[in-house]
Amino acid sequence: MGSSPSTSPPSSRTQVAIIGAGPAGLLLGQLLHEAGIDNVILEQRSADYVLSRIRAGVLEQTTVQLLEQAGVGERLRREGLRHDGTELAFDGRLHRIDFARLTGRSVTVYGQTEVTRDLMERRAAVGRTTVYEAQDVSLHGFDSDAPLVRWRHGGVQHELRCDFIAGCDGFHGVSRASVPAGAIATHEKVYPFGWLGLLAQVPPARHELVYANHARGFALCSQRSRTLSRYYLQVPADDRIERWSDTAFWNELRRRLPADVADRVTTGASIEKSIAPLRSFVAEPMRFGRLFLAGDAAHIVPPTGAKGLNLAASDVGFLADAMRDHYLERSDDGIDAYSERCLRRIWKAERFSWWFTSLMHQFPGTGEFDHRMQHAELDYLVGSPAASTALAENYVGLPMDLPTRATAAALIH
Amino acid sequence: MGSSPSTSPPSSRTQVAIIGAGPAGLLLGQLLHEAGIDNVILEQRSADYVLSRIRAGVLEQTTVQLLEQAGVGERLRREGLRHDGTELAFDGRLHRIDFARLTGRSVTVYGQTEVTRDLMERRAAVGRTTVYEAQDVSLHGFDSDAPLVRWRHGGVQHELRCDFIAGCDGFHGVSRASVPAGAIATHEKVYPFGWLGLLAQVPPARHELVYANHARGFALCSQRSRTLSRYYLQVPADDRIERWSDTAFWNELRRRLPADVADRVTTGASIEKSIAPLRSFVAEPMRFGRLFLAGDAAHIVPPTGAKGLNLAASDVGFLADAMRDHYLERSDDGIDAYSERCLRRIWKAERFSWWFTSLMHQFPGTGEFDHRMQHAELDYLVGSPAASTALAENYVGLPMDLPTRATAAALIH
Repeated sequence: MGSSPSTSPPSSRTQVAIIGAGPAGLLLGQLLHEAGIDNVILEQRSADYVLSRIRAGVLEQTTVQLLEQAGVGERLRREGLRHDGTELAFDGRLHRIDFARLTGRSVTVYGQTEVTRDLMERRAAVGRTTVYEAQDVSLHGFDSDAPLVRWRHGGVQHELRCDFIAGCDGFHGVSRASVPAGAIATHEKVYPFGWLGLLAQVPPARHELVYANHARGFALCSQRSRTLSRYYLQVPADDRIERWSDTAFWNELRRRLPADVADRVTTGASIEKSIAPLRSFVAEPMRFGRLFLAGDAAHIVPPTGAKGLNLAASDVGFLADAMRDHYLERSDDGIDAYSERCLRRIWKAERFSWWFTSLMHQFPGTGEFDHRMQHAELDYLVGSPAASTALAENYVGLPMDLPTRATAAALIH
Repeated sequence: MGSSPSTSPPSSRTQVAIIGAGPAGLLLGQLLHEAGIDNVILEQRSADYVLSRIRAGVLEQTTVQLLEQAGVGERLRREGLRHDGTELAFDGRLHRIDFARLTGRSVTVYGQTEVTRDLMERRAAVGRTTVYEAQDVSLHGFDSDAPLVRWRHGGVQHELRCDFIAGCDGFHGVSRASVPAGAIATHEKVYPFGWLGLLAQVPPARHELVYANHARGFALCSQRSRTLSRYYLQVPADDRIERWSDTAFWNELRRRLPADVADRVTTGASIEKSIAPLRSFVAEPMRFGRLFLAGDAAHIVPPTGAKGLNLAASDVGFLADAMRDHYLERSDDGIDAYSERCLRRIWKAERFSWWFTSLMHQFPGTGEFDHRMQHAELDYLVGSPAASTALAENYVGLPMDLPTRATAAALIH
């Protein structure tokens, strides 16, 4: 590995320095741990802050398998809710898409907060290091064979020498920002609306998720458990949370749902309420020498397809594979293939999330023809087993290792 | 039917007055003839002019069956080319969509000119009247039970009393224009490009059609027979035919095709060369009292999905059903259901044509993200049997009588 150029105290060493202790960083840490690969996680926030973030809760089977590999499958198996389908609402009616029948697969509803908590507890139990409230984290030398991470903590400057850096620190994190501008290409689409989300300790209106296309705007009935519901409303991009009392939220939600669903919505005081913008974003490539980007650090999907957490999980699954190949098999094939393996799956999930978002939302400024196309597509979708299967196979998650185009062509023809 | 209010000489009477002697009007005339229903066709152009129009050449099985019902199946069966699939080209490679394997159905390549010729000859053989070069055609009283059509021919004013009027006279025809503006809703999208088409007496480059997505613009290798090829290039909406020599066309076509397809393009002098705009258009409803619109008079699709002629055929199939119900079964259920039955199929074909056009063309002014979504969708499409089947089932044609949404939902769930 060559000698480290650094002399600043206190200095330490690990094999993989992981930036960010969200679910991506924590999952990677545990997958590496299971393979006997030393790793340290650096997180600029506190553990409580990380746990307070309310995010996705729909896990693909691929993600569940990775969590099991990471040693956190037990509570997930016990408390996770298997969903064999989802419901689409439009023109005042519900239409079920039966994942299990169409694809043989299902999804598991289990809140991201619970995933994070399980991984944190597991990490504490196995005794791997996580540094919370690491300030001014900076990445160095990842274009050499001696990368280095520096940060401040409690007024003291620290540094960590390592073989590799995994940037799992989200869209606004330092990892992607550390890559020279000329080495990275970014592709972005910002949608002209946001999602107003409300979390409440009430039973969900339906057993499965309900995605509603309505003239007043999209609505989603989601859930974290049998007693914790998460609802969303499409709102203008410049809307403000102060405008939305709980009562206003529940009234608007009911207006956008078919009557028999609206009647079953149990209201309650909000535990959390916030507005998030919708964005599609991809940075390419995802490897720069000995720095790897994973999860939101490299790509964002609009939440409609429930792909964000699942893509992060498959990224770190690929990265853990690459690290195992490197340390245990003395092969860098996995490292060299990392970016391409990830991006093949990411672009397909970006496409699905963009398509599903475009299908379900009202777009300001589009004309009547586009509106009719949206309804014709919904009508076709629920009436065609082929089109329903295309939605279902993307929603439950495409295989981890997608065939190359040539292989796929051979399968089809 | 009540007494006619008209007194102008020379006056005549029929059961169904058909406006337009294109394939829609001619097919309707023969379907009515086979049912013993009297009809007269009025056409403002000459027979030679109608035959000189170069149009679509891909027939759904539904269309073939209607042509057989109309008594013109013989030459079609003998000379029509069965295509069990089509090819998509992108990133320099060909990907076949196997209609027969994915849907159990095929399409038949047989030029619209040949369809028109067969129907004309059949009509002459059975002795039904077609008035060519009918000037200043006007429609009257279709909101009463005594409709009337007037026209001039050879300087003489004529009128035709009838029970029903079928408007098969295309987008620019008099039929739709005769409907009071307040009674009709129109939906339209004009695409920011056109198709430059070239017809040449040369063998096709491939046995099946090739739809090519290329950074320079869309290209299509189509055909009318084993010795007659029709090629198309996407061009700017304001392009002019004078700018395109045959040589310039062939050179540009080859640039947009994968090398092994380009090498097999046989060039030759153009028989016809023209630029057509691309438009999506639907007028609703399609019935106004005793006036029925059918085909391009009511709707236009961009030609990418090869749906224009096929939709016209299914419209007149529904209309012939309705007329048979009326005259032979004394039921007006078919008349009352006509517009809805047609439109259910039309909106689905409009969606498919819009989607396939959006997938295959370059759109000026769109960004890199949209470009990447297009490629991700192509990549997904050729790799997923479900997505390939969705394309195939639309291309070969959805069933004539689509299930209502409730029935479809029952089938799926």
